[in-house]
Amino acid sequence: MTHPIIILVEPQLAENIGMVARAMANFGLSELRLVSPRNGWPKKGAHSAASGAVHVLEGAKLYDTAREAIADLNYVFATTARERGQMKRVFGPEAAMGEAKGRISAGQGVGILFGRERTGLENDEISLADAIVTFPVDPKFSSLNLAQAVLLMSYEWNRAATGGVLPFTGEMLSPPAPREMVVSFFDYLEAELDAVNFYPADKKPIMARNMRDIFHRLAMSEQEVRTLRGAIRALAEGRRLRKP
Amino acid sequence: MTHPIIILVEPQLAENIGMVARAMANFGLSELRLVSPRNGWPKKGAHSAASGAVHVLEGAKLYDTAREAIADLNYVFATTARERGQMKRVFGPEAAMGEAKGRISAGQGVGILFGRERTGLENDEISLADAIVTFPVDPKFSSLNLAQAVLLMSYEWNRAATGGVLPFTGEMLSPPAPREMVVSFFDYLEAELDAVNFYPADKKPIMARNMRDIFHRLAMSEQEVRTLRGAIRALAEGRRLRKP
Repeated sequence: MTHPIIILVEPQLAENIGMVARAMANFGLSELRLVSPRNGWPKKGAHSAASGAVHVLEGAKLYDTAREAIADLNYVFATTARERGQMKRVFGPEAAMGEAKGRISAGQGVGILFGRERTGLENDEISLADAIVTFPVDPKFSSLNLAQAVLLMSYEWNRAATGGVLPFTGEMLSPPAPREMVVSFFDYLEAELDAVNFYPADKKPIMARNMRDIFHRLAMSEQEVRTLRGAIRALAEGRRLRKP
Repeated sequence: MTHPIIILVEPQLAENIGMVARAMANFGLSELRLVSPRNGWPKKGAHSAASGAVHVLEGAKLYDTAREAIADLNYVFATTARERGQMKRVFGPEAAMGEAKGRISAGQGVGILFGRERTGLENDEISLADAIVTFPVDPKFSSLNLAQAVLLMSYEWNRAATGGVLPFTGEMLSPPAPREMVVSFFDYLEAELDAVNFYPADKKPIMARNMRDIFHRLAMSEQEVRTLRGAIRALAEGRRLRKP
């Protein structure tokens, strides 16, 4: 196994199972196990909620009990919102998926148990697990939707496994302009401002420096320097045209 | 403002707005702004989907345009799944909320724009923002549900703001047993095993050490030592009873 396995114990709503499949697919997970879904399986409503993550739903395996669903795994996490007084290691999502990454890299099969929408996992089911995962929720409003809980684990798995690579970055499409181009832009700007007596007598040096700092902060690309230079020219020319 | 503001631009489904409110409340966010919801507002279906996060829904403010919804803010993130060719800084959720934490601590108002369920934000709306946030999704399945996107930002805000404190920890309810108690447990166990000739001649020292290592790995609490000692006694006594 190359990823953790998501195991839903007696999920009730087909829509939730579909949203779980979607959340898994968003972060590259695909192995889903269902322990006796309350309303049977397969079930209408799941596919539309999965909005495209059909491969996860169709690959889902059915089991009668949580014990059977984890029989082939080496390490199992149980998710719970509340303390159960069990003497187990307790992880947050990030630490749990860091642990999972290490174990999966070492060839272990890792699973995550999620309980029923209303009542969660039973204590006997939690006692099947090696460790507990809980979420850093606001104690005043701690009930996470099932698909939301699966999403957070999938998100943290993706970050642990791939470093959370973004689909695109903010790298400049064109490189920062060469200093000479920037300085000549400053010269041009200051000359045009001089021509309209923008600078009060003797204030020019300080005012020019301050304005250079504004534009330096932009770290302009070549294209941006050309764009701004064009805008200044348009303002200056336009003025000259207005007074013939 | 002490938290980032969640701004939904033309959300379509009341259920999604409700699930957004729930996701926000899970991680301590409460300020929600709605830009002309497609089917009007307030709308049935939102409350049940919020499953208790009514304070967020009832505090939601309505605006006609994204521009009006962010007018009072100092720094705005725009969320998008795809590159828009805009020359903006691009953040992942964790880095974005780290940035938000610093700005909010400095007294700035920070908002996060989320687009329509199907089409996301328009380029003109994104151009209102200071920076872009995108998610480390699987490129093959990158469409996040609206409430899921809000959940990830809320989760990362909570982690940036509070360090992601868990509702409970795995600290031992009773401290690790004193070494003397552990060693006397070993003596008792080995004596009982001797009594039933468990150890082959001359193998006892190595076998005893290996078994001690198993139990050392448990880092047993006092209660656990008592429990195991009782179990061993029961096995031994039972045996004696069986052969009178």
